[in-house]
Amino acid sequence: MDHDTSFELDQRLARDTVFVTDLALCRVLLMNDRRYPWLVLVPRRPAVVEQTELTPDDYRQLCEESLRAARVLKAAYPQRKLNTAALGNVVSQFHLHVLVREAGDPAWPGPVWGHSPAEPYGETELAQRLEQLRAWF
Amino acid sequence: MDHDTSFELDQRLARDTVFVTDLALCRVLLMNDRRYPWLVLVPRRPAVVEQTELTPDDYRQLCEESLRAARVLKAAYPQRKLNTAALGNVVSQFHLHVLVREAGDPAWPGPVWGHSPAEPYGETELAQRLEQLRAWF
Repeated sequence: MDHDTSFELDQRLARDTVFVTDLALCRVLLMNDRRYPWLVLVPRRPAVVEQTELTPDDYRQLCEESLRAARVLKAAYPQRKLNTAALGNVVSQFHLHVLVREAGDPAWPGPVWGHSPAEPYGETELAQRLEQLRAWF
Repeated sequence: MDHDTSFELDQRLARDTVFVTDLALCRVLLMNDRRYPWLVLVPRRPAVVEQTELTPDDYRQLCEESLRAARVLKAAYPQRKLNTAALGNVVSQFHLHVLVREAGDPAWPGPVWGHSPAEPYGETELAQRLEQLRAWF
């Protein structure tokens, strides 16, 4: 059985992000906010709200893919601080944020969630960013 | 070699939390804020800032212990929403927050970090909370 069959990305996540790639478990999305290198990982499983609902295999895979995303961003931005979080207070579909922060960024040192409206990428820089990310993954 | 030898808990974490228990890898702390059931897991390893710096074994163990903490809180508060995060923008020693949220809590639906000053537990409720938590772990 293809577990993906009934997976549908939440509409708000779809609106706020751009598709990067699919890993074994997770869809990798780029938050469309040029102020932060910011990925969102969404397990392609239907109706998951909490990590405690994943099967043991899926949970292990989520941990591996989370580390992979963290390594991608940390390699690209070695001086910045990783932030990873699974919140879901607004969008209930389980999703994991993996981003890097730096002193002086708009929300620093507070959390980015709910801080201020996103600044979408321009068309060219978005295309470049996606090409980079796909190469790194 | 005992990896713990040179582990020292960050002074701010020590000030803001209360010791709950030691798991195989992590020290489990209770944030001294009665408004949220809020645990903090700190790998007892010296000088770790990012999860990417942990050994593969330690990273897997962190994931297991994070899930254990999540299950403890979700079992105790099945109607609430899990929030897990590793930020470290203020306290650089690696630490993972695992807490539960509910509609109407002081910071809902925004993140708890930096929202408002903690409300420390009273002596009796803190003792009861610690007894509960130690039984659940």
